[in-house]
Amino acid sequence: MIRGHGGNPGLSRMVRPGLAGVVSFMVMTSETLSTVPPLSLEELHSVDAWWRACNYLVVGQIYLQENPLLKRSLEPEDIKPRLLGHWGTSTGLAFIYAHLNRLIRHTGQDCIYLAGPGHGGPALVAAGYLEGGYTEVYPRVTRDEEGMRRLFRQFSAPGGIPSHASVTTPGSIHEGGELGYVLSHAFGAVFDNPELLAVAVVGDGEAETGPLEGGWKGISFLNPQRDGAVLPILHLNGAKIASPTVQARKDPAELEALYEGHGYEVVWVEGDDLPWMHERFASALAYCYERIRQIQQLARSDEWDGQRPDWPMIILRTPKGWTGPKIVDGNQVEGTWRAHQVPLAQVRDNAGHRAQLEAWMRSYRIDELFNPDGSPTDLVLANNPAGDKRMSATPYANGGKISVDLDLPEYRDYAVDVDPGQRGAEQIESTRKLGEYMRDIYRRNPTNFRLFCPDEANSNRLGAVFEATDRAFAERTDILDVKLSNSGRVMEVLSEHNCHGWLDGYTLTGRHGLFATYEAFAMVSASMTMQQAKWLEEAYHLEWREKVPSTNILLSSTCWRNDHNGFSHQSPELISVVLNLRGTVSRIFLPPDANCLLEVSEHCLRSRSYVNLIIQDKQPQPQWLTIDEAVEHCTKGYGIWDWAGTEDLGREKPDIVLACAGDVVTMEAVAAAEILKARLPELKVRFVNVVDLMCLFRPKDHPHGMSTKAFTETFTDDVDVVFAFHGYPGAIHQLVHGRPNPDRFRARGFREQGTTTTPFDMVVRNNVDRYHLVMDCLNNAWQTPKGSHELYRWCEDQLRRHADYIVENLEDMPEIRDWRLGGDASGALPLPQEPEPRTSEQTQEQGEDIAVPPAD
Amino acid sequence: MIRGHGGNPGLSRMVRPGLAGVVSFMVMTSETLSTVPPLSLEELHSVDAWWRACNYLVVGQIYLQENPLLKRSLEPEDIKPRLLGHWGTSTGLAFIYAHLNRLIRHTGQDCIYLAGPGHGGPALVAAGYLEGGYTEVYPRVTRDEEGMRRLFRQFSAPGGIPSHASVTTPGSIHEGGELGYVLSHAFGAVFDNPELLAVAVVGDGEAETGPLEGGWKGISFLNPQRDGAVLPILHLNGAKIASPTVQARKDPAELEALYEGHGYEVVWVEGDDLPWMHERFASALAYCYERIRQIQQLARSDEWDGQRPDWPMIILRTPKGWTGPKIVDGNQVEGTWRAHQVPLAQVRDNAGHRAQLEAWMRSYRIDELFNPDGSPTDLVLANNPAGDKRMSATPYANGGKISVDLDLPEYRDYAVDVDPGQRGAEQIESTRKLGEYMRDIYRRNPTNFRLFCPDEANSNRLGAVFEATDRAFAERTDILDVKLSNSGRVMEVLSEHNCHGWLDGYTLTGRHGLFATYEAFAMVSASMTMQQAKWLEEAYHLEWREKVPSTNILLSSTCWRNDHNGFSHQSPELISVVLNLRGTVSRIFLPPDANCLLEVSEHCLRSRSYVNLIIQDKQPQPQWLTIDEAVEHCTKGYGIWDWAGTEDLGREKPDIVLACAGDVVTMEAVAAAEILKARLPELKVRFVNVVDLMCLFRPKDHPHGMSTKAFTETFTDDVDVVFAFHGYPGAIHQLVHGRPNPDRFRARGFREQGTTTTPFDMVVRNNVDRYHLVMDCLNNAWQTPKGSHELYRWCEDQLRRHADYIVENLEDMPEIRDWRLGGDASGALPLPQEPEPRTSEQTQEQGEDIAVPPAD
Repeated sequence: MIRGHGGNPGLSRMVRPGLAGVVSFMVMTSETLSTVPPLSLEELHSVDAWWRACNYLVVGQIYLQENPLLKRSLEPEDIKPRLLGHWGTSTGLAFIYAHLNRLIRHTGQDCIYLAGPGHGGPALVAAGYLEGGYTEVYPRVTRDEEGMRRLFRQFSAPGGIPSHASVTTPGSIHEGGELGYVLSHAFGAVFDNPELLAVAVVGDGEAETGPLEGGWKGISFLNPQRDGAVLPILHLNGAKIASPTVQARKDPAELEALYEGHGYEVVWVEGDDLPWMHERFASALAYCYERIRQIQQLARSDEWDGQRPDWPMIILRTPKGWTGPKIVDGNQVEGTWRAHQVPLAQVRDNAGHRAQLEAWMRSYRIDELFNPDGSPTDLVLANNPAGDKRMSATPYANGGKISVDLDLPEYRDYAVDVDPGQRGAEQIESTRKLGEYMRDIYRRNPTNFRLFCPDEANSNRLGAVFEATDRAFAERTDILDVKLSNSGRVMEVLSEHNCHGWLDGYTLTGRHGLFATYEAFAMVSASMTMQQAKWLEEAYHLEWREKVPSTNILLSSTCWRNDHNGFSHQSPELISVVLNLRGTVSRIFLPPDANCLLEVSEHCLRSRSYVNLIIQDKQPQPQWLTIDEAVEHCTKGYGIWDWAGTEDLGREKPDIVLACAGDVVTMEAVAAAEILKARLPELKVRFVNVVDLMCLFRPKDHPHGMSTKAFTETFTDDVDVVFAFHGYPGAIHQLVHGRPNPDRFRARGFREQGTTTTPFDMVVRNNVDRYHLVMDCLNNAWQTPKGSHELYRWCEDQLRRHADYIVENLEDMPEIRDWRLGGDASGALPLPQEPEPRTSEQTQEQGEDIAVPPAD
Repeated sequence: MIRGHGGNPGLSRMVRPGLAGVVSFMVMTSETLSTVPPLSLEELHSVDAWWRACNYLVVGQIYLQENPLLKRSLEPEDIKPRLLGHWGTSTGLAFIYAHLNRLIRHTGQDCIYLAGPGHGGPALVAAGYLEGGYTEVYPRVTRDEEGMRRLFRQFSAPGGIPSHASVTTPGSIHEGGELGYVLSHAFGAVFDNPELLAVAVVGDGEAETGPLEGGWKGISFLNPQRDGAVLPILHLNGAKIASPTVQARKDPAELEALYEGHGYEVVWVEGDDLPWMHERFASALAYCYERIRQIQQLARSDEWDGQRPDWPMIILRTPKGWTGPKIVDGNQVEGTWRAHQVPLAQVRDNAGHRAQLEAWMRSYRIDELFNPDGSPTDLVLANNPAGDKRMSATPYANGGKISVDLDLPEYRDYAVDVDPGQRGAEQIESTRKLGEYMRDIYRRNPTNFRLFCPDEANSNRLGAVFEATDRAFAERTDILDVKLSNSGRVMEVLSEHNCHGWLDGYTLTGRHGLFATYEAFAMVSASMTMQQAKWLEEAYHLEWREKVPSTNILLSSTCWRNDHNGFSHQSPELISVVLNLRGTVSRIFLPPDANCLLEVSEHCLRSRSYVNLIIQDKQPQPQWLTIDEAVEHCTKGYGIWDWAGTEDLGREKPDIVLACAGDVVTMEAVAAAEILKARLPELKVRFVNVVDLMCLFRPKDHPHGMSTKAFTETFTDDVDVVFAFHGYPGAIHQLVHGRPNPDRFRARGFREQGTTTTPFDMVVRNNVDRYHLVMDCLNNAWQTPKGSHELYRWCEDQLRRHADYIVENLEDMPEIRDWRLGGDASGALPLPQEPEPRTSEQTQEQGEDIAVPPAD
């Protein structure tokens, strides 16, 4: 039995002191002692020296541009002109790091360190510098006086490094800029990494965010048998930028209940008394480590009953800005929000402040920490782990280094059989095919691939994956549950933040995955998509960062088929978000059918370091392309569909280009082209479908952008283009900017408007339906043949009939509902009789005055 | 003393049964009994009948299009062609509603009902229908047979209502479509509404989301003296769409610890045994109500010690789909995820299912619920509260009805004094002026206005508000805290989700506010901005929904001044998000200085039912316009700044238009224009500044869109426009689509790219700095005078000098750092010597071949 406190007689818990500073204690078993011995005096000195060295380097980074070793008194010109950085959290981060190093040295444990308060970046940079990992990656920043000078000058400075634990920081997979994700990133990192321990420091500021609070439940999806462990350390330093944190001011008993309620065993370490805090924290860390090993050993033995363990966590309460200036200009600084950023300001001009800075830096006893040449002393170096065990050098934090390509099955084996003579005849749910493909990816890659989804894998028709594995669930299961177990590896949690964060942690440590979600609710985690893209973008410029598997996002349950759920479930905004990212990292795919979806998915799963957005509705839909055609079409990214248009009329240019991107609107465009072909065969219509949206950009805006030649070969340079688009029409205007005559693009797409409708009415309300597209083509064509006017009228009639029909019958007209390309119900049959000869009035009307709604 | 359990001897807690179905009990004091008596048999019958009637109406909405009272057996054509809606959560919502009605009848308590699981919308609609509130708003939906038929047919059907507790639902301020916000909306609603009780039903699905978990801490900011109360009811029905919820499967002791840890007193009600569940829930509700009243009475007396109380909450565990089909086709449905949506499918075609549906509906004993004419029976009606106390008719949920306009001070009194002869001479932090204005808004509107901010009010230079009030904080305070108390009314919590949700709840109940946040991290809650806009958009079309105060969002700490924090802190994406919303609700303002900010802020605070996005950096910045000029400029939304350009050259058209939108880029554009004026006085430059971004749209795209005439009067119809933009350049391309020659707009704006820089270098990296703008103007001007080539070269030199300087000195060149319009350090002085006569080669170079980076 590993649940419950005190269940293991050999281990008594840390006792939480009622007041800060009271010494906590714990009794170690001999078994524990065998792995992590008590802190010896020698080790204490080394750990403490390492910590002081780290703190010294933090202060130096914030303040100094010269004189790094204080070989002379500080002069104004030694001080940086702009003082930037966050002191408050840094010493706490360094304290934890110092002790983790000791743990690693004794145990050989593979650890990664995630600094939730990433603004304490200088501590992480300093740690990597002390370990040597930093210099290995940035050889100019040597471990000597000149290197230290460079270390200081580069911090938060032009051409240097940002102030956070960013992409540039070796050992980091988590920037901690946008707060809330440290736990989800940590859990993502340890899934399927049984030997890894992710230490996640949660700041008490971050602890106030919703996404962070939602992150604790990672343990409800963690299996100690096959996954690694997360050790959360809640760092209560008491204050945010300008006021105290909620958790620091709660009754400690309440706080403990909260985390026990989340499923953790709470170990408290509180105080600022040295060296006792070292003793206390070393014991706490050793206890937690042993507890984790014990949980894992039991879980990996035959004796585990499968119950979710109570995982240990530490609540560490230390003063904000610990070891920094206590009082500045009469104000208490240490222990208050005033220590958050730069505790001493105006240091260049204010000699008193400068003297205080110097005294503060000298208080770390520089001679014990650095040799005269600037290299760390042996006392400091003694606390470094070796080689890849150093957290600044662990390959887990540079996931591309250890990433293994997916063993992908041949995607053509999952293709839909499409008869080019009967395109669109069969309607299938395209995402089912992807589900089958992913099922076999799961089978072939049992520890290297996961699907993340907010409880919708089945709803999104990806349910075939459950033939290969269950949903992961570490809480109690029930006999009535279906495909749910703690050995399952489909990650379903009703939290976009957890899904996205887990995927990010999983891919940044080298594994592969896909996040499938509702299109509208992808916006819940849109900021995470942006932050991940920023990470990948910046990593792209760092040679030492190996490329990692891409962040693949599949949006099903699209805006076009959420008529019944209503307005709140309709938004294609994530397209616009990804459009604004850099071309080095961003890709958007709108496959029109299942075969294209398969090709695109394979491409995305093979790719590295991209954010791939794939949009494909889950409802039954017509299938257009054979697998060979799909491969060709998707490889190019766009193409002319001769079979849909009427290109064979001999004239050089078409009268109109009918373009589309997105599955639902492609169906409407195909239907519109069919109507035109049947009823107005003289109109020369070119039909273009776009899968890879970025192709529309100019090559200088995106690497996938088509050349001007390709663009004009596809869209001509002067014929009007009616563009049926899945997203907001403004995106098309943004994309074709700079192309020949961009104003000829009449984009139709999703527009914000809420009422309840049937599926077809969704597209009618947005004017992207077949009838509006036909009318648009008539209205913008180079020349319109005889019969155009009648056809226009007929479209108007159809729209009126439709509006009446759905209110009466609560569903779409049969000719819409049952429409198949070339089918009897297609509504594309020619007009039953030859139109009457037109009057001149009608002729004029056709050419000029047909009133249509604005094109976008 | 009101903290702690059992602290009040007269009240013992509900006892949580170990197993579902065991009767919980509680002992009532005589005081309690005086307000809410025990459930009498008569009341039990009425509450139960009301509940059954509500359930019946839910089933009817999901399934029937005819035969609403089952006056004959169900035929296939009685069944809707598409079966949509969510059965699983609906009966639980109806159960709670029925009992709240009883509570309201006894106490006269003003209540609003927030259905977190908003997909249980049919229950809310049915409740409003039973109460009569629905018919008052929608007179066609009468409380008789024909009205019931309409009620059924409209649900999730064309021209009808969506399936969620949406805008169309009387009594709703919370759709519950995108999950996570029910608690933040509820707390927002009760701030400064001391008489209001918001009952927030939290589904166990929603309970998995991060934002929801972060919402519990609302009580840490709630003051029982002046605020109302939130009663959370965690509804554990056990399953989501396809699998069990985490919380339903946690050890109940752990769950209780979790909520006690959040600061609540947990009252459990579990089971499915009737009528005992009625007894149990009525007691629990009465207990919670009394507890809340007791807390409030004490807090509103002299005896309160100011401590945060433990607020009561209920955990209600009932089967998913309670009272619905237990078994369908051999599968257990009630109590499992199979009951989530439509428990019986294919009812039209499957006679067995149809019979099962009929039996299910008849199990509610229709005759007891509805008279033969379809009106509810007296037994049912007896459970309705009266008039405005009905939750479907409470004015609190139609906040515009009770909203009071802000008493705004004269904003001109806060104006910066600008001397038109010395524009830009003084640099001030513009948001400080807004802070002073808001300070006095707080003073004049002590219960009608709040500022919401993630711990950054001071950092955003809005700190003057603390002269009027403190930060709200209900947890323990400390002698060192500054401007922090439980009577404070500035809402600082490190959670964009809470800030946004609180503001939404506050404004939807009629009060006014502003959410100020980092520009980049506004994306954390971008989906909430979109959902609020959708709500306002749809409300716009409902006459009975009175307009509510606008959702005002101030973005300071903008992307342009987050150089030191790095890439993760830089994103203007919220502009793009709001651009895609409908013109009926969306506004974006980019004031160039403090006086413009004041005018814009006043406008936004007076406005109703908009999402107003205001972007203004917090750093010191030059001040351009006198207050009179600012009023004129902002009222128009855009304008030509003669003093910045060189319009007085006599020629009809300018050679180039230099336009800008956004404060930082406006400064750069002014500096560029100054350089051109000083060094190339013959070049005719028109300077345009845009405050109201939506003016750039065509009038058909946005009501603020300028006419074609105004557009060409401002931007001409053929002169090239160099546009310095705060956001992504693609937004400008999207905005000017459809305008004359849109390709002449060369937008420069923020581009995703990460390295660390100084402030000026941020704009250089994005090519929106003065030198690139000058080069752009030279490159695109209609004609360029003599000296252009030298100036171009000089700009290139300046950029090189700048790049060298910052790396050496870690700050911007003095001429940039200390630049003032017309000042000595402006760098705009003419070239010291007459340029050499140019060779023909140079001339050609000037006209044609100057290589510049692409304009966007």
